Amino acid sequence: MDFNSDQLIDSILDSYGKYDLTRKMDVDSILNKETLICVLEKVREILFPGYFDKNRIRSEYARFIVGEKIEFVQYHLKKQVAKALGNLDKCTGCPRAYAVEQAEQLVAEFLSKIPAIRDDLYTDVQAFYDGDPAAYSTDEVIFCYPGMYAITTYRIAHELFKLKIPMIPRIMTEHAHSLTGIDIHPGATIGRYFFIDHGTGIVIGETTVIGEHVKIYQGVTLGALSTKKGQQLKGNKRHPTLGNYVTIYANTTVLGGATVIGDNTTIGGNAFIVNSVSEGMKVSVKTPELQFTGGTEGKNN
Amino acid sequence: MDFNSDQLIDSILDSYGKYDLTRKMDVDSILNKETLICVLEKVREILFPGYFDKNRIRSEYARFIVGEKIEFVQYHLKKQVAKALGNLDKCTGCPRAYAVEQAEQLVAEFLSKIPAIRDDLYTDVQAFYDGDPAAYSTDEVIFCYPGMYAITTYRIAHELFKLKIPMIPRIMTEHAHSLTGIDIHPGATIGRYFFIDHGTGIVIGETTVIGEHVKIYQGVTLGALSTKKGQQLKGNKRHPTLGNYVTIYANTTVLGGATVIGDNTTIGGNAFIVNSVSEGMKVSVKTPELQFTGGTEGKNN
Amino acid sequence: MDFNSDQLIDSILDSYGKYDLTRKMDVDSILNKETLICVLEKVREILFPGYFDKNRIRSEYARFIVGEKIEFVQYHLKKQVAKALGNLDKCTGCPRAYAVEQAEQLVAEFLSKIPAIRDDLYTDVQAFYDGDPAAYSTDEVIFCYPGMYAITTYRIAHELFKLKIPMIPRIMTEHAHSLTGIDIHPGATIGRYFFIDHGTGIVIGETTVIGEHVKIYQGVTLGALSTKKGQQLKGNKRHPTLGNYVTIYANTTVLGGATVIGDNTTIGGNAFIVNSVSEGMKVSVKTPELQFTGGTEGKNN
Amino acid sequence: MDFNSDQLIDSILDSYGKYDLTRKMDVDSILNKETLICVLEKVREILFPGYFDKNRIRSEYARFIVGEKIEFVQYHLKKQVAKALGNLDKCTGCPRAYAVEQAEQLVAEFLSKIPAIRDDLYTDVQAFYDGDPAAYSTDEVIFCYPGMYAITTYRIAHELFKLKIPMIPRIMTEHAHSLTGIDIHPGATIGRYFFIDHGTGIVIGETTVIGEHVKIYQGVTLGALSTKKGQQLKGNKRHPTLGNYVTIYANTTVLGGATVIGDNTTIGGNAFIVNSVSEGMKVSVKTPELQFTGGTEGKNN
Amino acid sequence: MDFNSDQLIDSILDSYGKYDLTRKMDVDSILNKETLICVLEKVREILFPGYFDKNRIRSEYARFIVGEKIEFVQYHLKKQVAKALGNLDKCTGCPRAYAVEQAEQLVAEFLSKIPAIRDDLYTDVQAFYDGDPAAYSTDEVIFCYPGMYAITTYRIAHELFKLKIPMIPRIMTEHAHSLTGIDIHPGATIGRYFFIDHGTGIVIGETTVIGEHVKIYQGVTLGALSTKKGQQLKGNKRHPTLGNYVTIYANTTVLGGATVIGDNTTIGGNAFIVNSVSEGMKVSVKTPELQFTGGTEGKNN
Amino acid sequence: MDFNSDQLIDSILDSYGKYDLTRKMDVDSILNKETLICVLEKVREILFPGYFDKNRIRSEYARFIVGEKIEFVQYHLKKQVAKALGNLDKCTGCPRAYAVEQAEQLVAEFLSKIPAIRDDLYTDVQAFYDGDPAAYSTDEVIFCYPGMYAITTYRIAHELFKLKIPMIPRIMTEHAHSLTGIDIHPGATIGRYFFIDHGTGIVIGETTVIGEHVKIYQGVTLGALSTKKGQQLKGNKRHPTLGNYVTIYANTTVLGGATVIGDNTTIGGNAFIVNSVSEGMKVSVKTPELQFTGGTEGKNN
Repeated sequence: MDFNSDQLIDSILDSYGKYDLTRKMDVDSILNKETLICVLEKVREILFPGYFDKNRIRSEYARFIVGEKIEFVQYHLKKQVAKALGNLDKCTGCPRAYAVEQAEQLVAEFLSKIPAIRDDLYTDVQAFYDGDPAAYSTDEVIFCYPGMYAITTYRIAHELFKLKIPMIPRIMTEHAHSLTGIDIHPGATIGRYFFIDHGTGIVIGETTVIGEHVKIYQGVTLGALSTKKGQQLKGNKRHPTLGNYVTIYANTTVLGGATVIGDNTTIGGNAFIVNSVSEGMKVSVKTPELQFTGGTEGKNN
Repeated sequence: MDFNSDQLIDSILDSYGKYDLTRKMDVDSILNKETLICVLEKVREILFPGYFDKNRIRSEYARFIVGEKIEFVQYHLKKQVAKALGNLDKCTGCPRAYAVEQAEQLVAEFLSKIPAIRDDLYTDVQAFYDGDPAAYSTDEVIFCYPGMYAITTYRIAHELFKLKIPMIPRIMTEHAHSLTGIDIHPGATIGRYFFIDHGTGIVIGETTVIGEHVKIYQGVTLGALSTKKGQQLKGNKRHPTLGNYVTIYANTTVLGGATVIGDNTTIGGNAFIVNSVSEGMKVSVKTPELQFTGGTEGKNN
Repeated sequence: MDFNSDQLIDSILDSYGKYDLTRKMDVDSILNKETLICVLEKVREILFPGYFDKNRIRSEYARFIVGEKIEFVQYHLKKQVAKALGNLDKCTGCPRAYAVEQAEQLVAEFLSKIPAIRDDLYTDVQAFYDGDPAAYSTDEVIFCYPGMYAITTYRIAHELFKLKIPMIPRIMTEHAHSLTGIDIHPGATIGRYFFIDHGTGIVIGETTVIGEHVKIYQGVTLGALSTKKGQQLKGNKRHPTLGNYVTIYANTTVLGGATVIGDNTTIGGNAFIVNSVSEGMKVSVKTPELQFTGGTEGKNN
Repeated sequence: MDFNSDQLIDSILDSYGKYDLTRKMDVDSILNKETLICVLEKVREILFPGYFDKNRIRSEYARFIVGEKIEFVQYHLKKQVAKALGNLDKCTGCPRAYAVEQAEQLVAEFLSKIPAIRDDLYTDVQAFYDGDPAAYSTDEVIFCYPGMYAITTYRIAHELFKLKIPMIPRIMTEHAHSLTGIDIHPGATIGRYFFIDHGTGIVIGETTVIGEHVKIYQGVTLGALSTKKGQQLKGNKRHPTLGNYVTIYANTTVLGGATVIGDNTTIGGNAFIVNSVSEGMKVSVKTPELQFTGGTEGKNN
Repeated sequence: MDFNSDQLIDSILDSYGKYDLTRKMDVDSILNKETLICVLEKVREILFPGYFDKNRIRSEYARFIVGEKIEFVQYHLKKQVAKALGNLDKCTGCPRAYAVEQAEQLVAEFLSKIPAIRDDLYTDVQAFYDGDPAAYSTDEVIFCYPGMYAITTYRIAHELFKLKIPMIPRIMTEHAHSLTGIDIHPGATIGRYFFIDHGTGIVIGETTVIGEHVKIYQGVTLGALSTKKGQQLKGNKRHPTLGNYVTIYANTTVLGGATVIGDNTTIGGNAFIVNSVSEGMKVSVKTPELQFTGGTEGKNN
Repeated sequence: MDFNSDQLIDSILDSYGKYDLTRKMDVDSILNKETLICVLEKVREILFPGYFDKNRIRSEYARFIVGEKIEFVQYHLKKQVAKALGNLDKCTGCPRAYAVEQAEQLVAEFLSKIPAIRDDLYTDVQAFYDGDPAAYSTDEVIFCYPGMYAITTYRIAHELFKLKIPMIPRIMTEHAHSLTGIDIHPGATIGRYFFIDHGTGIVIGETTVIGEHVKIYQGVTLGALSTKKGQQLKGNKRHPTLGNYVTIYANTTVLGGATVIGDNTTIGGNAFIVNSVSEGMKVSVKTPELQFTGGTEGKNN
């Protein structure tokens, strides 16, 4: 056989030496995605008791079931946060024990926010139900709507983000992104009564600020302008600001850190917005009715 | 340690009392998503014998294998439908036995539609194969195309929807939505020879009506106009009507229950359509070529 | 009971006789999707050692761990390729042994490309990191970014596509499509330093050609014009060509095999492009600010 | 092919009509072995907190973790007990609701016995540790000793047996039997400080009575004499009675309901005992040393 | 670090060259134990319909469910039998296709024996129920008794053994051995109404012949005399012959191919029998009551 | 409802305070049985390459596959050994880092013994094949014989025991015990060419010494005399010594640390031996043929 496995492996190992895409080797700090997703699901079960449990929950046991879930979250999240703090193996001034202690503190702070997250999510459920005639009940909203999954994950991850925990909030929102097609950066700021309909293709960037009673349809981007010098802009406000009672129809793209969409504004679908829009406006793309003449494949219908 | 688990749990239990996001507790009627997805997959195996089975199916055993799958579907779907009928625990006039009997009847009706669903899917497979030069065979269409997965799930769920079974059709189409990014409401009416290319980001709303030989590209929305009084519009026609031989290019948004797209119409990509389009038109956004001046991040390329 | 299972099964079996959607029966050549996804993941582990392994990899064992993965890929991929070559049961001149031998040769060729794939992916990681201020490290890019997952899968599948292996490359990219909402056909040609931000809803067609240092945002389609005679166009160039240093903003659709986007061009979001754009241009949709008057549901906000 | 699947299936279905080994068909009361084993394991986790949990249990959460396990046991065991009560489908005077209510009561009684079971098991752990010089700690006894697994399962199942719950106690002890080779009937009565060493091959029959501080070695049978009229003896005392401080060495067989082994008795290994032994005796088989001449295979060593 | 992984691996590879315990390498004929156990369980489900299925089986579907199981068994068992025939890689006159054809024939013969296996098992269930006062129903016998599991597995494996299929019958009986502690060689000949009580530790050798209405208790061996020249005795009758209505109590050992236990004989427990016993005898070890004086550890109780 | 869950939980928590069966709480050192079993299986795969792998191993990859397995064993076993060393949380002079380092050293020593373990196992395979006329090949011995599984596990665990690693060797042999019914203490000393036939019920105690070419049948115990002061005898020789070429038939019990069975001795089945037996003797129980008169259940056959 021509195939020489030793030679092949040599060439791959050479390649490992060539680029720094291998630097996790010899380091014991890989975060465990599966564990983090379990943590996320447990928090979701705490937030909506009875909806995502395998069995009926009887109210006389609610205390124990919540307690057991809190314990699970505290135990596992603390371990992952300690890894994510990440200086474990690098600095001398921050020994492992310090990272663990700091992680414990951060997780305790996070857990104390759960009732407040429920306050916000309650308003979101209302907004979903009121906003969609196809919703038969708030149960259906909580149980079936991908937008509800995404906003729940965001509100959890956002609290972790505010505690400056690296990587983990992003892993959670990317999980929701993979399941729902809705990509909300955990750094975004989103007000109450937020409604995402259908969802797939929505992108909400890191420095976006969104008011209350805002509706966003599928395919809407609240993004940044492109840049070559990405890393120099870190921390800058690069994404738009939306006021209260804003509605943005499907597939519209709003870009830029200085772009402000005023209160009570409605933006039609498929618009490309890179400048601010004043309060109360209704903005829309005009669709000219004209003969459409495509490319060279003339035989189309 | 400052962290007090009892206090935290008290605050969460208080929160449970505050909002009605917990009302499933003490009720034994949670639908089982995993079971419903198994049912969906079994029906798909019946519809396309040999494609999704783990092993080769020999034709002399086809009768038994179909029978065994029918039995699985009947047994499990009946249980879930009985739960979904949902009055089980609430009314006095509809005891559990009645719901089970009704569920049995509904599932029998659903099963009798399987050959008709195959009739429709056969036309869809043809439309996919004819519509995509990249398709090497109808096998590839059935085996690989996410659009085929979505339309199959829709045609199954639509039959359940017509039988007025609550929740379950939606759980099935949301499963397909999560896997494919294609969100077809089970209430929509879709004619034969339907072709969805690529798919991600497609939304087809509850009261949409679609003719035959229609092509829809990725990112197309057939949706409703936004509303604050969603629940008052329940049952109204809120989504557009498409005639036969309509083609809609990528990322176009068509909204409104009174919006009618006539036969033989082609709509270009990225259009935002809220009015009707007459038969045979070709409609397209004009892309003006002009200097693009973005927001404040002047340093872009 | 009215329900007659025998009669139902008869009607389903009749339907099997009616349409050719069943022809995989009696044929033992179903590809195993799960195995192919395992192969894909193993190759990804070889490409980015230490990132996706369950445990820390110590560098003194790297040789063995790579060797074991190469063995896994070779063993399983060869079996699947032999099935996909597909002539196994049809021709007389190509006995099974011949297909297996050919598969072995093809897999050896594929494996020898792994270092070159790493060369390309290294440039992609750089492009992601430089292009996104929200990225905290190249680790985060490799570990979390769905766009990175999609481009990695594409670069693997593209090598298999060039070896004319049927079905398998497509199964791999459809897997990535399902997870990320990014649909890159394995036949596309994509240069180095490619950056996909956010990703969901991106479609890149089979005959697309993309230069170096190109940025593509979510919802962008590089597609073909619609056609009724799909199968007659097989092999024709149907998708656009992009030069170097091209940036395309969110939700823009570029269609047609004759459409060329010149070097250093920037195209704004939500544009619908069916004609070529000269080098260095900045093209954008103008969003007219006008009163938006929707359909019949007047009671919207 | 000679093989005719229809004919084969006919002959099997004929066989189903012939014998009553099929009567579970059309009845929905199959007990779920997997669920019962989960219940058993949960009770074991409650009895020995921290030993069989996947993670460390912190004492401040003990209350919640125990509560959650109690809930699991109550919910699932109740369902299985209601099935096992078994009259569900047969009598008219005992409707389903009655069986469920009765099951609830029985499970509550069982749960209230958990502290008492712990009292007994504590003495068993002491007996194991004191009795085996090879045991390094009581931790090792609880974590590793199959005899401990068997006696724990027995003490749980015995409480269920005393509540006259059919089938379930036996399913639990047969599970322990399969894992350990120790077959203790849940009906047996066994005193405190019981020690089983090694265990495999031990059989303790339904009407056995065992005092305190008893040691039983591997291969010991406490059984009944054989009978042709088994079902007429149901409920009779058919198995022996052992006093306190009895030791029985390996492979000894003690049979008969009238056989009593007095206090402080030691019985050597490989004895066959069908008559009573007075208090304080040491009984042993004498092994005559004589030339051993086997069967016809003269060529043995 | 002193540890040198390369050196270690070299020494292991050297060891591979030294002994022939590695000869399966480079050969693709490893039998799949998991598949064979699935086959065994499917046959058991066919034999006792409704007992081991996850769900209730309704009689109107029995035909399909049996058919589907037959198909599963035929498909998988054929593949494994073809591998086990084993000549695949060795001879030139028996190409792969021949082995597959032969396997197909053998499996068809095996399947045709299923009703006859049921005939025998029906008598065994009766014998178990009649023989054990602790049995509450024949349901309990089928569902819970390890002896029933062992005898069922034996009767299946014995049919495969008679068809001269290598390895597979043994893998099945060793699986039962592992679960029950009962080791019945598939080559043994066992009459109807066979009863194994408790079971653990029973050994029944390859050339044993057992009549009808025989009862065997735990720890009984029907074995061969030891030999140094094992392979020269292959095929010889090395294990005992038991007549009808024989009962053997716990832990008794009966050895030798010339040893015949006559009809209506009862043998007490813990006996060591290497000579024949005449019809109707009752044989037992006498347990002398004498002071037992053990070894040097005088401090025993 | 009478049932009060709070009260129940209180009583269980009280019980936790009462006995020390809970002391593992608040300690993070539970060994992971599943991981240890995986380690055991990996070592077995290294010892018998090709027998227990899922796929065919090609000899040109043997080096990599062995290397990858060595890495797995080293990584996981080291972690478990560090836990088992157990002083982690208790002493001040032995910090965690020290335990890890020590564990690394011990695992390296263990790995270096693998070729020597293969040397011994090769002789065992020969002994099994020569000793059992029912064995068709050494392949069958390695693949199917539970005795082979038990002796392999013992030879692995024995090396770990000699390195004074606590708990782990015992967990491994108890796993084999559960699967095979053969309980060999890892502390026993066993010579080459060891043959266990059938196996179930065999017990070989901690301080047993066994020569070469020894055969042990099912149900044989090589045990200690019973004692009340178990822990005071720790480390004493409590189990028998067997010379070379000893054969012990089924169900025989040999007890005591001073009991020596000389070379070339054969002991018949069902004997109870508490004194030494001189070299070359053949010892057997005499089975007196006498009327057997059982207990009170006179109606036996």
